[in-house]
Amino acid sequence: MTAIGIYGSSGRMGRAIAEQIAVAGATFAGGVDAGGDPSALAGVADVLVDFSTPSALDAHLAISRAAGTPLVIGTTGLTQAQHAAIDAAAADIAVLQTGNTSLGVTLLARLVRETAAKLGTDWDIEIVESHHRHKVDAPSGTAILLGEAAAAGRGTTLSELRVDGRAGLTGARTEGTIGMASLRGGSVIGDHNVVFASEGERIELAHLAQDRSIFAKGAVRAALWIASQPPGRYRMGDVLGL
Amino acid sequence: MTAIGIYGSSGRMGRAIAEQIAVAGATFAGGVDAGGDPSALAGVADVLVDFSTPSALDAHLAISRAAGTPLVIGTTGLTQAQHAAIDAAAADIAVLQTGNTSLGVTLLARLVRETAAKLGTDWDIEIVESHHRHKVDAPSGTAILLGEAAAAGRGTTLSELRVDGRAGLTGARTEGTIGMASLRGGSVIGDHNVVFASEGERIELAHLAQDRSIFAKGAVRAALWIASQPPGRYRMGDVLGL
Amino acid sequence: MTAIGIYGSSGRMGRAIAEQIAVAGATFAGGVDAGGDPSALAGVADVLVDFSTPSALDAHLAISRAAGTPLVIGTTGLTQAQHAAIDAAAADIAVLQTGNTSLGVTLLARLVRETAAKLGTDWDIEIVESHHRHKVDAPSGTAILLGEAAAAGRGTTLSELRVDGRAGLTGARTEGTIGMASLRGGSVIGDHNVVFASEGERIELAHLAQDRSIFAKGAVRAALWIASQPPGRYRMGDVLGL
Amino acid sequence: MTAIGIYGSSGRMGRAIAEQIAVAGATFAGGVDAGGDPSALAGVADVLVDFSTPSALDAHLAISRAAGTPLVIGTTGLTQAQHAAIDAAAADIAVLQTGNTSLGVTLLARLVRETAAKLGTDWDIEIVESHHRHKVDAPSGTAILLGEAAAAGRGTTLSELRVDGRAGLTGARTEGTIGMASLRGGSVIGDHNVVFASEGERIELAHLAQDRSIFAKGAVRAALWIASQPPGRYRMGDVLGL
Repeated sequence: MTAIGIYGSSGRMGRAIAEQIAVAGATFAGGVDAGGDPSALAGVADVLVDFSTPSALDAHLAISRAAGTPLVIGTTGLTQAQHAAIDAAAADIAVLQTGNTSLGVTLLARLVRETAAKLGTDWDIEIVESHHRHKVDAPSGTAILLGEAAAAGRGTTLSELRVDGRAGLTGARTEGTIGMASLRGGSVIGDHNVVFASEGERIELAHLAQDRSIFAKGAVRAALWIASQPPGRYRMGDVLGL
Repeated sequence: MTAIGIYGSSGRMGRAIAEQIAVAGATFAGGVDAGGDPSALAGVADVLVDFSTPSALDAHLAISRAAGTPLVIGTTGLTQAQHAAIDAAAADIAVLQTGNTSLGVTLLARLVRETAAKLGTDWDIEIVESHHRHKVDAPSGTAILLGEAAAAGRGTTLSELRVDGRAGLTGARTEGTIGMASLRGGSVIGDHNVVFASEGERIELAHLAQDRSIFAKGAVRAALWIASQPPGRYRMGDVLGL
Repeated sequence: MTAIGIYGSSGRMGRAIAEQIAVAGATFAGGVDAGGDPSALAGVADVLVDFSTPSALDAHLAISRAAGTPLVIGTTGLTQAQHAAIDAAAADIAVLQTGNTSLGVTLLARLVRETAAKLGTDWDIEIVESHHRHKVDAPSGTAILLGEAAAAGRGTTLSELRVDGRAGLTGARTEGTIGMASLRGGSVIGDHNVVFASEGERIELAHLAQDRSIFAKGAVRAALWIASQPPGRYRMGDVLGL
Repeated sequence: MTAIGIYGSSGRMGRAIAEQIAVAGATFAGGVDAGGDPSALAGVADVLVDFSTPSALDAHLAISRAAGTPLVIGTTGLTQAQHAAIDAAAADIAVLQTGNTSLGVTLLARLVRETAAKLGTDWDIEIVESHHRHKVDAPSGTAILLGEAAAAGRGTTLSELRVDGRAGLTGARTEGTIGMASLRGGSVIGDHNVVFASEGERIELAHLAQDRSIFAKGAVRAALWIASQPPGRYRMGDVLGL
């Protein structure tokens, strides 16, 4: 049985992952939180999952690399330097970083990329997401992930195309841009809709999350998969064979 | 038969209204456009419809008032002074100004007002609208009209509550605010969705416009109704008996 | 503090209601399930909530009536005779029966009734609902409740207008009918959308349930309200002051 | 310039196609309707488009084959024998038959097939479609086309999996089935939504048609493409390089 350790084990995601480890029939190797010692865990776990905070990532990455323990990173909002550090660690260990561990969003990103690639820029792309009232940033990490998939489908990066929070005298829409809109309210877990709009027709590709357990289930699935992979940087799509 | 005159008769809405006048079995009393003489029309028409431009409104209003001819105003983006002038003219003629002449939106605004009044501020209100790629401003006039209805239901005005184009590090949602989000793409005529989101449930009240003829039909309906009203300032809800 | 007793206390809804009784700061007077003795409970509770089964209703109703204890009934699929028995009991006790105890659905039903009353039969009404894969009947009780609200708004009853599960060579739509469609899949708690479709425009009034706790919260709210009402038959709309 | 002839040229689709031939800068080679002589057209057209009726197809197919003129068939509800005749004709001419000529639906069908192939049968598939009140059959040909794409993704055929018009005491959902639901109302051109629902999450892939011109545009695009193809039976996906 694969033993999975958790960085950030007492947070909402950490606890949900511990539950799903049991459901999946894997072993919970232990957890570490802020104030704890992250180094011991890497020795006893076959694979590590990090849902702590970006500021703790550097230490966790170094420990995993030194111990040769594969690592799944679910924290977002990483710096360019942190992404470079992940790439460097990937020379020695299997590592996977993602903004969304759900199977549904991972597949949706693939569909969005493919759709953007097939449709010309006479199909305008807009992404709208809804989350609960406590969320402090907009758009969501998942909306950005989907926007990046759309941009990749068009052979470029989201930063070139992105228009956030359209408001005021905007002028007509600029061809090729990707608009991002965010709704906040109630206890919505996370709904995302990617709209492709052309003359006379629209395609809409959406994901609706009803329950946070889907993210924990996906994280455990990723951990079990990456535990037996050679060094390298992986994506959720690799886990799911997409 | 009621004779209806049109200010702005060669614009997209003006032409659509002329068509619907025929459909409704009324008489088209003639049209005037920029460069034409608006004064003659008020004498031959039983009622006037103005879908020209805000800058032409002052003259049209004065002419209608002098001739005692009821007036339906479909232009938006009016100044406070223009609204005051409409109120003043309403002492002498029947006059109706609206941001949306469709039956569906008029009823929706009523439902939104009532829903906002019944539900406490633990129900967050968000309005999302979609329009074609050529639209130059956001949010739409209709979204603002719906936001005003929601604010009125809570006993206040939209300007107190409105949050446009949420983006970046916004912090958690402020209770009682009304968020506005705008999508642009393709040839979408106009979709509006008012979301009321609470812990564990959402109510969504939406209007989908498939065809611009609905606005022309509503304008003609308003004209036929106002033609026989006493002086006063009216709303679309009055036309529909809401 | 109001003491609330539960018939069907070990079922999914019964347990959720017990939880919400605590959240609301009321007292849990005890619960009874199949095989237990329902008569004792009526003496110790200020109000009773019945989420057991239709077959147990007759006994529960008689006990509540004899004890003079107000009763909230959340079971559905009742016979005409059972509805008549509720009416009879309402001469002596306050009693409320409903197919859906959520605040959102209760308000939605009111909006649907009003909208159906305002719009002519040139606006076609369709109701589509989605529920989890384990649900064994279609359409849902809540869809029927919404259909009844629409029919009431048009001054008739749903049985006169209802078209279920449209399929095959149906012919053109019959004016004035109300279509019902049901989707089943995954773990969907319950989404309902009432569509009013006319030439060129649609109004859609929807409720999305994310979490079953909304039904338990509403049942407790109904119990606390009805505990102090005079004899009579009530609806959820009365609880919410609609 | 490619010369395109139309069978069924005075019908709604026929006239729309004639318009789009002009927009595309192609030549309208002429049209034939019921009562006319279809044989002359095959000689003067480079390619033929048939949007007449299933009963006229056999003759049109024979004429095209004899003349060696490629043929796009947009009629639906064909018999098995007619499909076999198309296959036989495809030995001599390029021929394409489809239930929906829009670019958006063609791409959507591809996404549905791929999604069904990637997701296991723990993801339930439901298809819901909306059309105007005059439509006489349900579900729509496009819904069936999408259902077939989903079934193909799972390595089987729709007839094995299809559940139409769910209503009554259905029992729990049978794993692997594909549910079809149909709404009818107003003037809706055609909305289709394919729902994949699992524990805790849903993916929804939708197409919204705002304007019938998209079907005419797609038919012309197919005609221009097939005009230069070798004999064979083609699909819309081939036209679009999917």
